[in-house]
Amino acid sequence: MTAIHHFQTVKNIIHGPGSLEQLGDKLYLLDTPLKQVVLVTQNAMHRLGVTDKIKAQFARRGIAVHMIDNVEIEPTLENIERVFREDVAPFAPDALIAVGGGSVLDAAKLFAVMLTNDTPLKELLGIDKVSNPGKPMVLVPTTSGTGSEVTPNAIVTLPDEELKIGVVSRHLLPTLVILDPLLTLSLPKAITAATGMDAFTHSLESFISTKANPLSDTFALESMRLIAGSIVEAYQQPDSVRARGDMLLGSMYGGLALTGAGTAAVHALAYPLGGKFHVTHGVANAMLLPHVMAFNLDSCAARLKRAACVCGVALESDSDEVAAGKLIEQIHTWTAILNIPQNLREFNVAEEHLAEMAVAASKVTRLMANNPKVLSLDDIQQLYRRLLP
Amino acid sequence: MTAIHHFQTVKNIIHGPGSLEQLGDKLYLLDTPLKQVVLVTQNAMHRLGVTDKIKAQFARRGIAVHMIDNVEIEPTLENIERVFREDVAPFAPDALIAVGGGSVLDAAKLFAVMLTNDTPLKELLGIDKVSNPGKPMVLVPTTSGTGSEVTPNAIVTLPDEELKIGVVSRHLLPTLVILDPLLTLSLPKAITAATGMDAFTHSLESFISTKANPLSDTFALESMRLIAGSIVEAYQQPDSVRARGDMLLGSMYGGLALTGAGTAAVHALAYPLGGKFHVTHGVANAMLLPHVMAFNLDSCAARLKRAACVCGVALESDSDEVAAGKLIEQIHTWTAILNIPQNLREFNVAEEHLAEMAVAASKVTRLMANNPKVLSLDDIQQLYRRLLP
Repeated sequence: MTAIHHFQTVKNIIHGPGSLEQLGDKLYLLDTPLKQVVLVTQNAMHRLGVTDKIKAQFARRGIAVHMIDNVEIEPTLENIERVFREDVAPFAPDALIAVGGGSVLDAAKLFAVMLTNDTPLKELLGIDKVSNPGKPMVLVPTTSGTGSEVTPNAIVTLPDEELKIGVVSRHLLPTLVILDPLLTLSLPKAITAATGMDAFTHSLESFISTKANPLSDTFALESMRLIAGSIVEAYQQPDSVRARGDMLLGSMYGGLALTGAGTAAVHALAYPLGGKFHVTHGVANAMLLPHVMAFNLDSCAARLKRAACVCGVALESDSDEVAAGKLIEQIHTWTAILNIPQNLREFNVAEEHLAEMAVAASKVTRLMANNPKVLSLDDIQQLYRRLLP
Repeated sequence: MTAIHHFQTVKNIIHGPGSLEQLGDKLYLLDTPLKQVVLVTQNAMHRLGVTDKIKAQFARRGIAVHMIDNVEIEPTLENIERVFREDVAPFAPDALIAVGGGSVLDAAKLFAVMLTNDTPLKELLGIDKVSNPGKPMVLVPTTSGTGSEVTPNAIVTLPDEELKIGVVSRHLLPTLVILDPLLTLSLPKAITAATGMDAFTHSLESFISTKANPLSDTFALESMRLIAGSIVEAYQQPDSVRARGDMLLGSMYGGLALTGAGTAAVHALAYPLGGKFHVTHGVANAMLLPHVMAFNLDSCAARLKRAACVCGVALESDSDEVAAGKLIEQIHTWTAILNIPQNLREFNVAEEHLAEMAVAASKVTRLMANNPKVLSLDDIQQLYRRLLP
């Protein structure tokens, strides 16, 4: 671990049950006169009456709202470009409000900088390619998973290349985040499960990352403590505001941790599963997590022990290896309780695909470099093979 | 504790030994073209060669630097206004860089908004009186105490009224904070002691504040853990980069905690000691802390126990009261080891002053409202009396 670290975050986070009702009163934090805004959201928010409530908050203040709900799940570059061209740019918003899952938040983050940078989206892909600050944003997550509300990353899919790729820029950080657990109560069980394990993966990978540092560790540990204490309850009792609140805070902390330390091999191996086989991001991470951690164990047992202790699954008196083993066992238990798929054949992955997938994963060098242990192509294939029982 | 909380912070924190050397490379984070900057600092930084190094970083980039080192310790309103009028405004800086203790950082924060708000400083005193965002700032603390680098507060002294008063505004938050423990190695022992106990006070008061919330708790607990594990070493072995680094991170976390939850009765009682008797802020807080916590004990024993456990001075198996008592005992031990004054007579405080001091402290209602237990005028006098043995 190097000695000097750069920690980035957002300026304002409002959290608590019902906090979305404060949106209108907190718009002054954007420090921009608002005549018109774009609200990026998804269908489920209409059904819940959330979009009507938001529109009313803006109407009372004389601010015009143009609503967009046609961003795809895990959107392609073409989808983002088309929605931007047809629905965002013509409306020339002063700010963007996003209420939704990771895909919705990522899309809004891209729209915000596309409005102020006269550069094709394709040329913004990669690290620090965005020149100008974007329009101000308010991000309101409705899943407890991606942590996208506090990260400088947005992911798009390139279907021709069967690849997912990120835009990474400090200009993707919003001015205001609202964490309202009431918005997550009606989240379907499968999404609660997959996004929750995704959030745990962010924190555990950040904690064992070669770029881990005191600031990212603070968030990673607190995130794992919160998620370990609430993920099963959030799944089994969807109305538990306590569990939903802790999950939302835990996933936000996971976003802060990964912004500071980066994710690692789990995320690298998940990319080919998403790009080619359409395994959703959270499911792919959850499936891979225990196997990659078992592979990593001998390189970071002491850290895995600290994670196990903070999750309440091991004792200080356990040896590093025993405690790390208990954590991996707990992850298997969670994925079983949460009905996370365990077999890649469900997604039409077969033995013959593994060599190509391993090559694709190994090319995600930005994340592979964060892993505490080097993975050969053969190691990667072996890990995928564990999911073809 | 209410359910909805607003958490504010800064966008960029760079930390680690030697991180000040990255200042020049990180100026792009200000997103402002820089032709000229004002560097607010203090004499000690010249002696250490720090200001020369900073000037060289700017010179290499063709940025003119105007240096200011005439801000008083715990500055008066008049001092801030004069330095602004004579040294800051005529130079019309594009940004401000501050390298120093809390007084230097607070001064720079005020200069930044005075440059963009055509309002006399006196009218900015209070909460949210600053209309316009200020010039961008980089804040580099050289003490581990105030946490001013991450708070929206700046304190000025009004000598005529024997009072210290704050400007509180989100526009006082900088864009970039650099935490370089190497800058704190030569801090005099008495300042290490007083500022370190000040930082601990921020976190403990935030943790028992009526406005405490999950986000502020995260920072308060981690701050107390770091400070408890390093304050004696930083005092006894000033060159310990490990201890100095943990103190700097701990005091920054203390600033985040108090921004989220506020300080309470200790700070309220400290104000009259500063305004009238010139007890420095850190010393006043450190003197009062164990006595106020003993007074508070029956209203927040469970929280004091959590603080005691995180500091490693009590066991989970202790009762709340026993653990809380151990924490208070530990604070007494620290103040003894750190040679913090224990007697207000050293500062010319006498029994006859207590009634007036109690009235002054009780008027700091903004902070008193955060205390878990109401203090009568008689309670306040009794607490001051413990420091007149």
